[in-house]
Amino acid sequence: MTFFSSNSALRGLLDQHLPALAEEEGLAPDQIRQGIESGGMVLLGNPRHPDLKPVLIGQPCRVKVNANFGTSPLLNAPRHEMQKLRVALEAGADTVMDLSIAGDLADIRKQALAACPRPLGTVPLYAVAQRWLDAGKDPASIDPEEIFEEIAFQAEQGVDFMTVHCGITARAAAWADEADGRVMGIVSRGGSVIARWMRDNKKENPLLTGYDRILDIARAHNVTLSLGDGLRPGAGADAGDVAQWDEVIMLSRLARRGREQGVQCMIEGPGHVPLAEVEAQIRGIKAATKAPLYVLGPLVSDACPGYDHIAGAIGGAMAVAAGVDFLCYLTPAEHLTLPDADDVRAGVMASRIAAQVGEVALGRTHAVQRERRMSTARAALDWDAMRHAALDPQSLDARRESHKSEEVCAMCGKFCAVKMLRD
Amino acid sequence: MTFFSSNSALRGLLDQHLPALAEEEGLAPDQIRQGIESGGMVLLGNPRHPDLKPVLIGQPCRVKVNANFGTSPLLNAPRHEMQKLRVALEAGADTVMDLSIAGDLADIRKQALAACPRPLGTVPLYAVAQRWLDAGKDPASIDPEEIFEEIAFQAEQGVDFMTVHCGITARAAAWADEADGRVMGIVSRGGSVIARWMRDNKKENPLLTGYDRILDIARAHNVTLSLGDGLRPGAGADAGDVAQWDEVIMLSRLARRGREQGVQCMIEGPGHVPLAEVEAQIRGIKAATKAPLYVLGPLVSDACPGYDHIAGAIGGAMAVAAGVDFLCYLTPAEHLTLPDADDVRAGVMASRIAAQVGEVALGRTHAVQRERRMSTARAALDWDAMRHAALDPQSLDARRESHKSEEVCAMCGKFCAVKMLRD
Repeated sequence: MTFFSSNSALRGLLDQHLPALAEEEGLAPDQIRQGIESGGMVLLGNPRHPDLKPVLIGQPCRVKVNANFGTSPLLNAPRHEMQKLRVALEAGADTVMDLSIAGDLADIRKQALAACPRPLGTVPLYAVAQRWLDAGKDPASIDPEEIFEEIAFQAEQGVDFMTVHCGITARAAAWADEADGRVMGIVSRGGSVIARWMRDNKKENPLLTGYDRILDIARAHNVTLSLGDGLRPGAGADAGDVAQWDEVIMLSRLARRGREQGVQCMIEGPGHVPLAEVEAQIRGIKAATKAPLYVLGPLVSDACPGYDHIAGAIGGAMAVAAGVDFLCYLTPAEHLTLPDADDVRAGVMASRIAAQVGEVALGRTHAVQRERRMSTARAALDWDAMRHAALDPQSLDARRESHKSEEVCAMCGKFCAVKMLRD
Repeated sequence: MTFFSSNSALRGLLDQHLPALAEEEGLAPDQIRQGIESGGMVLLGNPRHPDLKPVLIGQPCRVKVNANFGTSPLLNAPRHEMQKLRVALEAGADTVMDLSIAGDLADIRKQALAACPRPLGTVPLYAVAQRWLDAGKDPASIDPEEIFEEIAFQAEQGVDFMTVHCGITARAAAWADEADGRVMGIVSRGGSVIARWMRDNKKENPLLTGYDRILDIARAHNVTLSLGDGLRPGAGADAGDVAQWDEVIMLSRLARRGREQGVQCMIEGPGHVPLAEVEAQIRGIKAATKAPLYVLGPLVSDACPGYDHIAGAIGGAMAVAAGVDFLCYLTPAEHLTLPDADDVRAGVMASRIAAQVGEVALGRTHAVQRERRMSTARAALDWDAMRHAALDPQSLDARRESHKSEEVCAMCGKFCAVKMLRD
């Protein structure tokens, strides 16, 4: 059990929370220990994060949903972002990521950690890049030492998981940026900064060459590394090219190295992927990496701005059915603007629907039982039981408000198929 | 060419519109003629419907989307329903169905036909059943002659396609209603009326025994029969049982008989189907019936009231990828109340997203080209081109409103991955 013996922060966290986790996931404690030891599961939790309820990710745990929030240069209102964090948790998000890129990032992060009893993730590179951009400096001139310092600082603040773009190599970044190659090139913000840095400095990715330094920081605080997909496809047409797969291969090796060094790792996945390729992508990445897979969508159409939560739910459901462990939400604002609180709620619900649909496809007991509870309640016209089975009872309440005294729904009235054969 | 020779209404409609249809679908005129002759395509259009633009349904035509509207006993406001019809068409619905069950149904239908340049469908049985229910009479006492009269009346009014529940047999209805069988029993309103009538009268389905009378009416006005799925599953747990398949088998025979008699037929499909079974259901029904397939969803989760448009879009995308021809929308109000105009718009957009995603999976040129146009526009940060490629330009405009002078989006601001490597 070298993993646990080398990562005392993880060992302590697990000792404290194992009974509750086993109960929550419906798994035996030993299955959880073995899952973590093998790298197939990760336990998100930094002991410095106050009042944290850690979260397990990886098969056969329940599929989890992450919601992003964070300031933007055009919409910089930290109070609004804290409200979005609360809305995300109330809507059922299992984790959140603070992607702020404007304002006092350290203070926003501190506030968010204090307000959030669930694991909080970040992308430390954003803080460094934003300092450069705010100062009007070229991101290609970033001093890599600042990135390592930022990772260490955020780990000490209590951040539970961090996206680190360690797997993007100079050759794959160049392939993704070839004029006759991708339609969209590189669409990951972190990936684009690293690619620019490598291109202009003619050096390999400093987060790759310095990976062991990141591992040392991560291990000390049980920060789970979310190995970022800087070369994920940004258009359906770009899905599955050699730039993407070269990074997947590197992420697999980095996850393996992480496990050897007692650091938990998960893999970030696509991205824009046509429906016909989602299953192959997910199974391919899982087979290659053998680590929990965390996807953004996948977004199965590029043509639905304003509705990316729906296109993402279609891809997400397919991805969960193919073995994905962790869904990052997309909101209706994606590709257009910063989401507001309503968008956050819509995004979380869409991802939860995708998880439910995919878990039913996998035959997972908790998901199948929820379906059954709803159908049985409908057959009995038992609105209270329907409310309890619904993924979002609030939505049901709101639409029933004007006719909640009726046994039937306001669509069919007394022309109710359920009553037709019962009465 | 017996089909065309026996159906002069269809022949006339096709002669008039074939060039425009060929252009719209990107197909050769002969391919359309042969598709209709084989029964694999139907051309929705009743010559009595004024100013109609007929619509083709069936592979390899573009997948079409239907939106329902109609009064309900609890929300009976015809003017509101006419607004919903307009909203549905503006949002891109290819057809609409008037499912009114309250008020002066003949007048509502007349208004709707006059206001709708696209094919309009109905369920004639609703009008008959509602007269019975309004009079406080048992639907089991319905005189079948009234149903045939209603079908003839609506055909003369100009209705383009009609759901007729001819395929539900006494034995299959009894199987669906067995105490130890389905969770939800029969959830189709039309199916439940026919089942009650058969059970209490101890007779076979009058729409089945009188099918040839329906064919005679339909042929005279080129009414396309939408052979209703009265026994569709109303819960994921009920999908694929023998009651459902017995009806599919009967629908296949009825579609064959319709073709022999010069009447266009399509098949209505599920319903509530878990994601893992959608493809098998769709391929199975298409293989058995060899007719255009028109599905309601499929709804891949029972547990998302308030979000059935999203769960339906997941199932719809999978269904289109498996060969479905025609999607009936679901709105966020499904299972709860009558949709309002916003719900109608949301429902149409969700079904259009499903169609787009599924058609990209099939490699259909028009769908793939739209994806490519959007991605190319994104790579160029060309917001006007993005607007033209978007399924819903209005939604893009609304979210860009506050920062439309910016080249970048308000999520990333100057920290834009696209600009990072370009500038």
